[in-house]
Amino acid sequence: MQKIALAIASLVCAAGASAQSSVTRLSSSTAHTSGVSSGELSSSRFGLRGVEDLGGGLKAGFWLEAGVSMDTGGSSLRFDRRSTISLSNDLGELRLGRDKIASYVNIEAFDPFGDTGVGGNGASNLLGSSAEGTAAGSHPKRLSNMLGYTSPKFGGVQAQLQYSFAERANNQPNKDRGKGLSARLSYASGPLSTAIGYAEMSGGTDTQQQTYKALNLGASWDFGVVKPMLMWARENGANRSMHAVTLGASAPIGKAGELRVAFTQFDNKSRADADSRKFALGYVHKLSKRTALYGTVARVSNDDNATRGLATSSSALASPSISGGDNVTGYSVGIRHSF
Amino acid sequence: MQKIALAIASLVCAAGASAQSSVTRLSSSTAHTSGVSSGELSSSRFGLRGVEDLGGGLKAGFWLEAGVSMDTGGSSLRFDRRSTISLSNDLGELRLGRDKIASYVNIEAFDPFGDTGVGGNGASNLLGSSAEGTAAGSHPKRLSNMLGYTSPKFGGVQAQLQYSFAERANNQPNKDRGKGLSARLSYASGPLSTAIGYAEMSGGTDTQQQTYKALNLGASWDFGVVKPMLMWARENGANRSMHAVTLGASAPIGKAGELRVAFTQFDNKSRADADSRKFALGYVHKLSKRTALYGTVARVSNDDNATRGLATSSSALASPSISGGDNVTGYSVGIRHSF
Amino acid sequence: MQKIALAIASLVCAAGASAQSSVTRLSSSTAHTSGVSSGELSSSRFGLRGVEDLGGGLKAGFWLEAGVSMDTGGSSLRFDRRSTISLSNDLGELRLGRDKIASYVNIEAFDPFGDTGVGGNGASNLLGSSAEGTAAGSHPKRLSNMLGYTSPKFGGVQAQLQYSFAERANNQPNKDRGKGLSARLSYASGPLSTAIGYAEMSGGTDTQQQTYKALNLGASWDFGVVKPMLMWARENGANRSMHAVTLGASAPIGKAGELRVAFTQFDNKSRADADSRKFALGYVHKLSKRTALYGTVARVSNDDNATRGLATSSSALASPSISGGDNVTGYSVGIRHSF
Repeated sequence: MQKIALAIASLVCAAGASAQSSVTRLSSSTAHTSGVSSGELSSSRFGLRGVEDLGGGLKAGFWLEAGVSMDTGGSSLRFDRRSTISLSNDLGELRLGRDKIASYVNIEAFDPFGDTGVGGNGASNLLGSSAEGTAAGSHPKRLSNMLGYTSPKFGGVQAQLQYSFAERANNQPNKDRGKGLSARLSYASGPLSTAIGYAEMSGGTDTQQQTYKALNLGASWDFGVVKPMLMWARENGANRSMHAVTLGASAPIGKAGELRVAFTQFDNKSRADADSRKFALGYVHKLSKRTALYGTVARVSNDDNATRGLATSSSALASPSISGGDNVTGYSVGIRHSF
Repeated sequence: MQKIALAIASLVCAAGASAQSSVTRLSSSTAHTSGVSSGELSSSRFGLRGVEDLGGGLKAGFWLEAGVSMDTGGSSLRFDRRSTISLSNDLGELRLGRDKIASYVNIEAFDPFGDTGVGGNGASNLLGSSAEGTAAGSHPKRLSNMLGYTSPKFGGVQAQLQYSFAERANNQPNKDRGKGLSARLSYASGPLSTAIGYAEMSGGTDTQQQTYKALNLGASWDFGVVKPMLMWARENGANRSMHAVTLGASAPIGKAGELRVAFTQFDNKSRADADSRKFALGYVHKLSKRTALYGTVARVSNDDNATRGLATSSSALASPSISGGDNVTGYSVGIRHSF
Repeated sequence: MQKIALAIASLVCAAGASAQSSVTRLSSSTAHTSGVSSGELSSSRFGLRGVEDLGGGLKAGFWLEAGVSMDTGGSSLRFDRRSTISLSNDLGELRLGRDKIASYVNIEAFDPFGDTGVGGNGASNLLGSSAEGTAAGSHPKRLSNMLGYTSPKFGGVQAQLQYSFAERANNQPNKDRGKGLSARLSYASGPLSTAIGYAEMSGGTDTQQQTYKALNLGASWDFGVVKPMLMWARENGANRSMHAVTLGASAPIGKAGELRVAFTQFDNKSRADADSRKFALGYVHKLSKRTALYGTVARVSNDDNATRGLATSSSALASPSISGGDNVTGYSVGIRHSF
């Protein structure tokens, strides 16, 4: 009997997933689109994971996680959200593979919307996409070919260090293109949670090296009735600099509800009149531990030289064209189901 | 013990799949090909699904289903057969995501071969492929970005309604390209099963809108010793019109066998001398509830201006070239295994 | 209770996988690269499989197996390592689908490194890649659209026969392009294991047929303290001929360790001064039945007209450029975890 129960426990923990869909509408001053979007509250995904106890405090673990498009089903299943093998004991955890970079954790953790859906702050990759420099953008969410170490917690303090190989031959002109370094130091005690994150990405063209640096700080305090949070992020590189600051809060409404509000200011330090402001308001209502309904409304207002839009996790929903100085509004109503 | 049993039940229901392979031969008057084909009896697939009881009669469910090529293994796993999240109670079921369109159900349900393999009637997408109009063809099997409602059954009557978003910006020239509407009304009572289906697809080029309309009707009567069925389908659009009618029957042979026979007439209403006729004969022998052997033979005869072939679910098996007026013959012998 | 235990057993056997990552370094005389590699000890993979007992000694089975890149997560999940359905009884097993070819088994079985990672002998596909002839190379590891038969064992003797369809129409110029035939005959008794393998691949251009033939022999003897093994392989075709011979051994070190050593000589019979030699040394240390640490070092020395490198299973790690006569060295240290 005991053996069977263990076998089940191992299987249950070996598969986890979250699926969600919403009806989403985006509108700029000149156009609007509506559609079904996948992953507005948290990303739709499918994963396998497990931990083996090797004795003497040593553990081995694996984690395979793929994104899923619940609106179209149309992307091929790839474990590119996370694919890691790890060894851990009292001295910390060693991880090999593709993983979330340490410095991105704060962007999610100190945004009431977790950098997801129309309400998410979108405060990573501020300088631009992969086309403009590194293999994965100025401050990507994840990196491949990574060697990572996470310390145990000492009195609430925890450190994380990561190195990602460029995997280019040493006699190529920009041999470090794609290399990444990231670190995070966090402190949590009682209602307080705070952390600092840093990343250095090696990018540029095939012949010329370019370094992108990301720094961010976050803090939250859980008063019980409301949990305010603050996050500041900066990215420098390619003679450009962008800052973002998010001030937000989440508050429980009764036993099943949660209200979320966030304001984010984007400061373009290298171009005049190119700042943006975003306001987001959301409500999540849990039908059970596994299932929730939610609604979000968000608005971005742009300075004359800014064209910032709203992120959706739909693989097909086209964004309406956004002109400089445009304001963009988004609505999303949906359901999340974990399994 | 009870808890463990429930955990198992939930896991067992969470994964389902069907795999099958057959040796298939196709021949026209000038050429023939032979090979291994996947999914001749019913499509090879792998899926995850589950339902959560939220209390008060409310249920949440998810369904992820991907096609699998058992002959080559070569297509990437995509949950593009179905990826839905649903909420249901006594008033019906709401579904969001990618799903089979309601009007396609009759094409499968009233064909003894279920529109699958060399014997399938192939009576959807009669006017042509996606290249000729809509994003997914004149009458596709599935649509993405769909909002659907299925009613409960009232005295054997059930209704299904679906709307699929185009997800294009409203200031684009043919903004509705890809939009779909579908409905099905069915009645089942004792040995009788009958249904009507309708779909309207918005297609055309990037600049000019074009609407495709599909209508079909089906009925079957289960006499026990034999179950005859009749299906009529019509598609109009782009100044063309195609009709198809399938007359078929299935009959149990002993406890484990089933004989299937179907005749389908294709009428091209917009071109002279371009009709086709298809005859299919098949036998399925169950080795168990999960495993069956089967054999199918089918023949298409074309008028001088028609080049209709036989569908196979092989991802690699090339069809022999078919000239106008050609006859095409196909054989398939294989095994199906569900797990 | 019994039923529940059976249900669990069926589920447990239905999913199996192996994941592994290593830090790998490759260097030629002019350049080197370092990175994270997936599958240095045995390929990282994810699979589903099961067997159904149909009674009377008859069994139906399926096997779906996909490769996984633990370093990047980046390849789409495809069941192209194996996708088969089978029927078996006392007379043997019939298999349909994509499978490992019988003649490749010896290349793996009689190499202490199993033709995997920097230490693997790389003794298949000796004449070249798919671009040079067949759809899958001169002696590929796997073929699609295959019909296979494996005999039962008669006094230690077992035979395997496979036929893979080209799936091209018979009126095409090189209609057999992609067709494959393979056979293997093995004998195992006590410490002795020996086998012969043969394959014939139909390749060439779209208009001209070309046949590639592969032949190999292997034997191993398990003395307990050491297991020496010998493998000889030959490939002929397109007016070229390559021979390879691997002499290797594995030896247990204590209860958890295994030492591996192999030397492979590559003889290019159709070009002068184009031979290569490879030496590999490895150690595997089991932390448990499911988890192991390993390290491998390998070196290839090339004659002036040879540019043979080291295989890695990384999807991203670029090989340093190798000039004729270059020597290439590789190191790999990693962890394997099965689940």
